[in-house]
Amino acid sequence: MEGPASPAPAPRALPYYVAFSQLLGLIVVATTGAWLGMYRGGIAWESALQFNVHPLCMIIGLIFLQGDALLVYRVFRNEAKRTTKVLHGLLHVFAFVIALVGLVAVFEHHRKKGYADLYSLHSWFGILAFALFAVQWLVGFSFFLFPGASFSLRSRYRPQHVFFGAAVFLLSVAAALLGLKEALLFELGTKYSMFEPEGVLANVLGLLLVAFATVVLYILTRADWKRPLQAEEQALSMDFKTLTEGDSPSSQ
Amino acid sequence: MEGPASPAPAPRALPYYVAFSQLLGLIVVATTGAWLGMYRGGIAWESALQFNVHPLCMIIGLIFLQGDALLVYRVFRNEAKRTTKVLHGLLHVFAFVIALVGLVAVFEHHRKKGYADLYSLHSWFGILAFALFAVQWLVGFSFFLFPGASFSLRSRYRPQHVFFGAAVFLLSVAAALLGLKEALLFELGTKYSMFEPEGVLANVLGLLLVAFATVVLYILTRADWKRPLQAEEQALSMDFKTLTEGDSPSSQ
Repeated sequence: MEGPASPAPAPRALPYYVAFSQLLGLIVVATTGAWLGMYRGGIAWESALQFNVHPLCMIIGLIFLQGDALLVYRVFRNEAKRTTKVLHGLLHVFAFVIALVGLVAVFEHHRKKGYADLYSLHSWFGILAFALFAVQWLVGFSFFLFPGASFSLRSRYRPQHVFFGAAVFLLSVAAALLGLKEALLFELGTKYSMFEPEGVLANVLGLLLVAFATVVLYILTRADWKRPLQAEEQALSMDFKTLTEGDSPSSQ
Repeated sequence: MEGPASPAPAPRALPYYVAFSQLLGLIVVATTGAWLGMYRGGIAWESALQFNVHPLCMIIGLIFLQGDALLVYRVFRNEAKRTTKVLHGLLHVFAFVIALVGLVAVFEHHRKKGYADLYSLHSWFGILAFALFAVQWLVGFSFFLFPGASFSLRSRYRPQHVFFGAAVFLLSVAAALLGLKEALLFELGTKYSMFEPEGVLANVLGLLLVAFATVVLYILTRADWKRPLQAEEQALSMDFKTLTEGDSPSSQ
């Protein structure tokens, strides 16, 4: 699963893809802000505009920051593993807090307006993504940062953690797309079919969300871009193999 | 990327995951049929029910059959590579034809009703997924089935083909979710928030779609479930390495 131990230079194309992902992520956040500012009256906490805090916070937290958190092992290739892990965990904490503010905003808005909660496909996806995000963080923390989990347990859990992390990220993107669609149909109704500027802008935002997710997952899944084992991790891995499989380290 | 050459038995858990994916896929198709039958009057070509052909065909073609086409290399692990490739290509052809019927249905329905085409996020995603599906098939065919592409070219293109195949599948799932949401909001309007049975059923269908996609991608991406190289492919791969890298086959 992991690459060779040699201190390989970063793959040549990787920085360009990372830069492109960051550009797309910032454009996604800016476009969300532009949509809310131009067509929805902007953002405020103590008014009917409180609703608008919801899409902005969810996109910054569960899309942009979560996406970036997935990339830290590709970007910080030669830092100590522990430093990179802490950064990965911290970015998820920031994402969680910002998403929580976004959730409080929409539940308060519903309460003030007397709307029902959690009836729509968007809300089911959103609450599921948020709950799985929290579970994934807690399980990841227990295995990888909290001392105690054995090397073997960590090795077996790691691929599951990576798969489910990517799945929660994609579920968050799906929830955002459904929310965007819902916001358009509630507001525009049949005007949506007349290519209203707001509808076109929001459709473009939907495409940008998918483009950001695609570039993040491309960087994450490309086999030859995986983080190489550092010297001390390699030694540990070999010691472990020697102990458990009876191989000599040189046979690897 | 490929596993070892030894004729390894199929991983023990794999058949259960494949069976589960097929069960989920069939439940998705059946639930779509139940939704259209119970709440939308069923299916017919020469009437207003023509619209209902659209969701059913897209879900059978671009979700169920496309998902299954991605799994053939995991399921048929010990067949000749060429047979598996032909099956992979053929399943995509079936998926394409069924999806095309679904597209004709919705465009004809729009024409008869005088509705605008391709204004919504759902339609943008859907038409993009369908176009990329066709491009991916043509490029895949040229590289892997049409004779001529060199072994080295195929090896370099393969990971891109796998990534973009998974991406087109996920884009199709996103398009289906947006279409489902659109159909609910157009039909139910504010009744959606009163937990109407149709709304709950459609939300469950959305969750089932995501569950199917998750299991398919889990099977597809699990490193130790990848298809092992068959003896003749291994020999070819080694000959090629010898030619290009100057290694002796035994150094592999």
